[in-house]
Amino acid sequence: MNCLEERILKDGIVKEGNVLKVDSFLNHQMDINLFNEMGKEFAKRFEGKNINKILTIEASGIGIACVVAQHFNVPVVFAKKSKSINIDGDMYVAEVVSYTHKNTNQVIVSKKFLSEDDHVLIIDDFLANGCALQGLISIVQSAGGTVEGIGIAIEKGFQPGGQIIRNLGYQLESLAIVESMDASTGKVEFRAQ
Amino acid sequence: MNCLEERILKDGIVKEGNVLKVDSFLNHQMDINLFNEMGKEFAKRFEGKNINKILTIEASGIGIACVVAQHFNVPVVFAKKSKSINIDGDMYVAEVVSYTHKNTNQVIVSKKFLSEDDHVLIIDDFLANGCALQGLISIVQSAGGTVEGIGIAIEKGFQPGGQIIRNLGYQLESLAIVESMDASTGKVEFRAQ
Repeated sequence: MNCLEERILKDGIVKEGNVLKVDSFLNHQMDINLFNEMGKEFAKRFEGKNINKILTIEASGIGIACVVAQHFNVPVVFAKKSKSINIDGDMYVAEVVSYTHKNTNQVIVSKKFLSEDDHVLIIDDFLANGCALQGLISIVQSAGGTVEGIGIAIEKGFQPGGQIIRNLGYQLESLAIVESMDASTGKVEFRAQ
Repeated sequence: MNCLEERILKDGIVKEGNVLKVDSFLNHQMDINLFNEMGKEFAKRFEGKNINKILTIEASGIGIACVVAQHFNVPVVFAKKSKSINIDGDMYVAEVVSYTHKNTNQVIVSKKFLSEDDHVLIIDDFLANGCALQGLISIVQSAGGTVEGIGIAIEKGFQPGGQIIRNLGYQLESLAIVESMDASTGKVEFRAQ
């Protein structure tokens, strides 16, 4: 069991509706020491890959991506969820459905920051249905870049996103894959890795 | 001249309407090595302060805050701009006007992650009118916590936010204070520090 799985068992809270609350250490309050341990683990799992950039999506992917990036010594680009008046020029755009927020966002990345020369590691906090991830992959493809791998903190293994992404041939590494969770008992079970 | 000021002169782009675009290194693509240099500088400027938590606001404050946090060995809490269905329980709330996005947001922090025991360093990427910052200060005050200091990457010295915050007695440290900028020539002038 790795440090993230241990932390989920210690501080994660299972809620009705397949919600796993990890806001005390992952996506509201953020434990930076834990993020560094996660960065070490991703560096090990993607060792030998030619990665020159990390791509993530606002908001809760950003902190993890920035700390993890230090273990690859690369810059981070974060995809934005709505068009800002401070962004000009051409954008790569993908449509992403959010089940959490019950809406559809345009996810955008400036064309200045992704190109055919980029070998990208995608980082995000959660993988469930995989909609956000598919949007990010589509953006890298639009740029002509290469997705070298995908690093996720917590995958909900009982939802289809992980299987879809692995079927597409990507190296997807999730530090904790939740096989099942039960709001009545608070029990969380992980897939053996 | 510090590393951030140098980088602004090298890669910042001045646009009409007092817009300083730093999206190639600060708030869209993010240079993590630069953020670490900024962290070292904040650690020096807030040396001796009893800081146990960093508070920032999504989205572009998060990356800076997480890297800077390593120089204080503290966790980061980020304020969210809209209510998520994944957040339950009581919230601290502040109303914040965004001139950039031309709207008003409710900025929220879970009451679980700020209390009267917290000695908070507030970190953000930009300070102009100070609306976001006043919202974050108000949230710390609602919690009964102490604002030990405020660390900003880029302050627009010709807008009122910095003066207002300093008049309120806070230790506000901005790594680059832009005194003036000119979209026609691209020239940026900093306040001497």
